[in-house]
Amino acid sequence: MGNNLRVNVILLDSSLELVPREISNHPSVVKNAKKRGKKPTEVLLDISVHYFAMKNLKDREKRGRPDIVHSAMILFLTEPFVRGDLYIHTIDSKIIKVNREVRPPKNYNRFVSLMEQLLINGKVPPESQNPLMEVTDLTLSDLSKEYKLVLLSEDGTYVPPTKLCEEIDDKTLLGIGAFPHGKFSREVLELFKESYSISSVPLETNQVLCRILSSCNEKLGWP
Amino acid sequence: MGNNLRVNVILLDSSLELVPREISNHPSVVKNAKKRGKKPTEVLLDISVHYFAMKNLKDREKRGRPDIVHSAMILFLTEPFVRGDLYIHTIDSKIIKVNREVRPPKNYNRFVSLMEQLLINGKVPPESQNPLMEVTDLTLSDLSKEYKLVLLSEDGTYVPPTKLCEEIDDKTLLGIGAFPHGKFSREVLELFKESYSISSVPLETNQVLCRILSSCNEKLGWP
Repeated sequence: MGNNLRVNVILLDSSLELVPREISNHPSVVKNAKKRGKKPTEVLLDISVHYFAMKNLKDREKRGRPDIVHSAMILFLTEPFVRGDLYIHTIDSKIIKVNREVRPPKNYNRFVSLMEQLLINGKVPPESQNPLMEVTDLTLSDLSKEYKLVLLSEDGTYVPPTKLCEEIDDKTLLGIGAFPHGKFSREVLELFKESYSISSVPLETNQVLCRILSSCNEKLGWP
Repeated sequence: MGNNLRVNVILLDSSLELVPREISNHPSVVKNAKKRGKKPTEVLLDISVHYFAMKNLKDREKRGRPDIVHSAMILFLTEPFVRGDLYIHTIDSKIIKVNREVRPPKNYNRFVSLMEQLLINGKVPPESQNPLMEVTDLTLSDLSKEYKLVLLSEDGTYVPPTKLCEEIDDKTLLGIGAFPHGKFSREVLELFKESYSISSVPLETNQVLCRILSSCNEKLGWP
């Protein structure tokens, strides 16, 4: 550890998916996709675009917020000292591996196009042997064999983030929810046995990430 | 102080402005504005849209990045415990006062529309007596009479962010650059006499904000 402290993160139940089939015929969805020259099922689900079409979608309070993943990726991947491995577990249980050297587009619309390409082709760049991002065949259960899974949840045991940074190492994978409302999926809760809360109030994804990354920088003596 | 610790922030030389007159006739600018049903000078300058038109613009390395202001505003305004006053000083020396209870749109495109409305009408909502955001008549010099101005800059004296949080109070205004590249303007450097660096490497706006907010939460005992 010491100067080699790396924080590995997995964004959980992330609100990132293509438009699901059950709403792909909704007139507003069809119209919006057409405007972008795309098929409805090639477009990222986004509540700011698909609000009306999403009205009857299952678990809709957790869905259609790729901006949460976008801002979390940028905060994590611009951290110069302690960023480690990064995974994105999506609301439909895909697991995306992100190369830690990736600089995701800062512009939201470019990010949306890139993630559409990723979810359609399985990786970006599409033909790369060593992709920047890839939809893997992994499951959370596979990851639980490689890492010690630790969940950050408002229902967990309270621990100050500075204390948490003393207890993690490069075999720990910190799970942080990346959805706007609602509870973690059963899949997540079954595999993340250990669970901590770092605040007395629910925090947004980037507030959690910020406190963890900052505390781990403090542990390194604020390089 | 104690439980009342508030961090006041001003984003400096912020990369937030409407399309300037000198490029408002550029064909690509006209075309893009038309697509949105707007006049070119009613549209936010954005390098991801106006890249070619910006080629010869003065100080262009600092301009056209409203996404920096967007993500900084969200990180600051979703901080539950220590957020204080928030100002945005723009690259063309406007000073915007942001109500600390504002919840800016998370969606980038909605944020862009809102900031266009703000820069065109001077406030949002347009007719409000108590606006959420307002372009003020203030100058940095006016603010220097109300607050102690403290600059965060890679050229400043090194101080760990946890130490900095011990030295600020509700009369301090922390200045953080909100532009992608280049140096602070002369106006900023003349008024911010005191200047600190919190890292050995240049940090992005949100990394600075994150370390400060997190450290000040630590000072409160991680509420």
